[in-house]
Amino acid sequence: MLTPFFGEFMGTLVIILLGEGTNAAVSLKGSKAENSGWIVVAAGWGFAVFCGVITAIACGSPGAHLNPAVTIAVAIKTGDYSSMLSFFAAQFLGAFVGAVLVWLFYKDHFAITEDQGTKLGVFCTAPAIRNPLSNLFSEVLGTAVLLLVIGCIGAKTFAPAGPAPGLAPYLVGILVWAIGLGLGGTTGYAINPARDLGPRTAHALLPIPGKGGSDWGYAWIPVVGPVVGAILIGLFLRLSGI
Amino acid sequence: MLTPFFGEFMGTLVIILLGEGTNAAVSLKGSKAENSGWIVVAAGWGFAVFCGVITAIACGSPGAHLNPAVTIAVAIKTGDYSSMLSFFAAQFLGAFVGAVLVWLFYKDHFAITEDQGTKLGVFCTAPAIRNPLSNLFSEVLGTAVLLLVIGCIGAKTFAPAGPAPGLAPYLVGILVWAIGLGLGGTTGYAINPARDLGPRTAHALLPIPGKGGSDWGYAWIPVVGPVVGAILIGLFLRLSGI
Amino acid sequence: MLTPFFGEFMGTLVIILLGEGTNAAVSLKGSKAENSGWIVVAAGWGFAVFCGVITAIACGSPGAHLNPAVTIAVAIKTGDYSSMLSFFAAQFLGAFVGAVLVWLFYKDHFAITEDQGTKLGVFCTAPAIRNPLSNLFSEVLGTAVLLLVIGCIGAKTFAPAGPAPGLAPYLVGILVWAIGLGLGGTTGYAINPARDLGPRTAHALLPIPGKGGSDWGYAWIPVVGPVVGAILIGLFLRLSGI
Amino acid sequence: MLTPFFGEFMGTLVIILLGEGTNAAVSLKGSKAENSGWIVVAAGWGFAVFCGVITAIACGSPGAHLNPAVTIAVAIKTGDYSSMLSFFAAQFLGAFVGAVLVWLFYKDHFAITEDQGTKLGVFCTAPAIRNPLSNLFSEVLGTAVLLLVIGCIGAKTFAPAGPAPGLAPYLVGILVWAIGLGLGGTTGYAINPARDLGPRTAHALLPIPGKGGSDWGYAWIPVVGPVVGAILIGLFLRLSGI
Repeated sequence: MLTPFFGEFMGTLVIILLGEGTNAAVSLKGSKAENSGWIVVAAGWGFAVFCGVITAIACGSPGAHLNPAVTIAVAIKTGDYSSMLSFFAAQFLGAFVGAVLVWLFYKDHFAITEDQGTKLGVFCTAPAIRNPLSNLFSEVLGTAVLLLVIGCIGAKTFAPAGPAPGLAPYLVGILVWAIGLGLGGTTGYAINPARDLGPRTAHALLPIPGKGGSDWGYAWIPVVGPVVGAILIGLFLRLSGI
Repeated sequence: MLTPFFGEFMGTLVIILLGEGTNAAVSLKGSKAENSGWIVVAAGWGFAVFCGVITAIACGSPGAHLNPAVTIAVAIKTGDYSSMLSFFAAQFLGAFVGAVLVWLFYKDHFAITEDQGTKLGVFCTAPAIRNPLSNLFSEVLGTAVLLLVIGCIGAKTFAPAGPAPGLAPYLVGILVWAIGLGLGGTTGYAINPARDLGPRTAHALLPIPGKGGSDWGYAWIPVVGPVVGAILIGLFLRLSGI
Repeated sequence: MLTPFFGEFMGTLVIILLGEGTNAAVSLKGSKAENSGWIVVAAGWGFAVFCGVITAIACGSPGAHLNPAVTIAVAIKTGDYSSMLSFFAAQFLGAFVGAVLVWLFYKDHFAITEDQGTKLGVFCTAPAIRNPLSNLFSEVLGTAVLLLVIGCIGAKTFAPAGPAPGLAPYLVGILVWAIGLGLGGTTGYAINPARDLGPRTAHALLPIPGKGGSDWGYAWIPVVGPVVGAILIGLFLRLSGI
Repeated sequence: MLTPFFGEFMGTLVIILLGEGTNAAVSLKGSKAENSGWIVVAAGWGFAVFCGVITAIACGSPGAHLNPAVTIAVAIKTGDYSSMLSFFAAQFLGAFVGAVLVWLFYKDHFAITEDQGTKLGVFCTAPAIRNPLSNLFSEVLGTAVLLLVIGCIGAKTFAPAGPAPGLAPYLVGILVWAIGLGLGGTTGYAINPARDLGPRTAHALLPIPGKGGSDWGYAWIPVVGPVVGAILIGLFLRLSGI
């Protein structure tokens, strides 16, 4: 039961449940955390990733990718592409189920929230200023920073004097908090194709009362951007030997 | 003196004293932290749990449950139900005494706060939108995430390369902070029967001037919800062997 | 040079410089952090204590008391009262010099701040609701929680599987953050006689334009309260053997 | 490839990208984090430094200076001035490129922000109250605290019982967060000549629409102040043997 597939599924589910839960808590009407601001959003997603990584490791995926961009970068670095597709499936599925749980959890608050953009915003990212090239650049660079620092946290340089292995899940959470604060202002930092696409699909399929469209015209950016970032950093990590 | 009973009592007391202290600080009139927002509430409860866990361990309860839901999940996982009742008693008693201390601490601020709901809200949880089924689901799912990630933090997988044992109390605190941000918006995340029932009893018994009812009609939800969540995760941890 | 006296002096200086610096940043006119709220105050003092503990250890005081209440509790626990007076002197002196530095640092902002209470509030604590008995109880209980959890962080129970020794300064900082959130709303949590008395003396002596009185009528509470808390927890730690 | 020069370049780039990204996110029009306050700024810069230190170590600079003031203090302490100039160049270059990336990242938000001071404020520091002597003192003292506590985190005293080496990058990040909260209110805590001068140069050279001057009249303060602080603490560390 504790397979890498299960670990990736559970870990991504936990990230989306806690991360999109934070989105819902901050933006939906009547929530106890309504309008509590960006520090809550960024901390919430950072801690969600910490919880997801801990869960993934214990549930069977010691590498705890939880993000197709991580999987791609690791595959390029190691040259081993064998488990890519099954990891993608587990990550997408985990994100989808996590989003469904968030909807069930905040169902009564979705019901009293009128704004369609707010409801969609719980599920997936949207740009502050719509401009495909800029938005794509945001997702490429945000993902590149994520993968570069993750690569450095796990670098050979650190062993044995580096971060205690058990510290790494927490440090990755702080990294995601940092990216949220520094590089979240433009597109809302998807930096993970599964994080955006899985919940967007959930939004399209779920019977959310008064929902609008799922903005599929934007959906390619939080997929292509992170993939490009992953290829760049994958190559960098491979060539540099970090 | 340093028995598991004493450890559970002291640890739960510290959680409630610091956690409900935060509630009081944020909501009671004239407090220096009045209206300081959800980030304060969620951080305060997370750090309260960290302090409680540290206290419980040193005071004689190395497992530091501090929550009947944790005790139930551990009992199901290990098959050892022998100390359940004494743990429940210690946790409930600790929560009760912690709530009495919060009242004594913020007594002058209770005195100048008119709103009865605000005064009750220092002690126990209340739903943002009253709907028994949704509220129950919130408490089940919130507790399930708590127990799942606690189970993963303590998992065999991590030893010996996992979180330094001494890091665990802090990581559990961050987990509680995460749940507050992501899954706190609906019912205020009791996720612990003792945390809600002990202080609710204190509210009912204490001579708080101008207090209203203790909302006993809602009291079963933050008890039953966490118990259901505990059974589900207890079974999952047992079957999966995490 | 790296003596316990010097370590206590430097560590307390750093606490007051960063902690009262945060007070000044949040409350003085024209500061970039003006009105940034209670989360800033509580985090600032927590991190200030972390920095002070790190500094004290490296500068010659491995125990890093930085607080007469800690010194008293340790003396009662160990039965060794020999260095109490020199520690008190170092702590008071460090707090005084730290407060002078804060004044020099924020001098131009003191100059454009009219309110006398705001100016005094940078230096020392004041009750939200003036009531000697309640205020004293706040300081006794706040200090008791501080000393209890510090005692537990350093407990024998934890060694060797407990918090890595190097983690302790950070954990103490988080504890102080927690106390600020949970028990800071009434008196502003002095929980340290040197932290209040040293800077109050600095306020009285410094040529601050347009300053009011130093509220000496209240000054005994943040001294006596922490001392009482220290005696209680010192006895508890001694009797329990934690 | 993984040389100290490359490590210093990459680490400083990451600090500026995430730190000035936070400035941009909080201050530019239309950003999702607009007006999210000082806690975001201070946390963002603290975490940026944590990420930069992790990156620098893995990319070839085990000392991870990322700040000419650190380089000067270390040179004075060790008596080895050989790599000072190449470190300065790498730090300045990294800061410059980081600032260019922030501009590209937030380009559409720069375009709709009218205020010239806001645009400049993303790149470099400016005093809340312009007063050369006070401002210089702020930068000297802020840098002195930074270098003192960094010196203490890395002190001999701690080994082997001190902070796990892998914990140090995180602790330095918390230290920078602390300085932002406590000593950031006056000049905006450059405390690093490269952090201010590199981005100021970028501001002067980049074709930012509607930008004003780069305030070169102030530019010497966040250079001279940190250098003075570095000399003071370098001498203190050398003489005290910490």
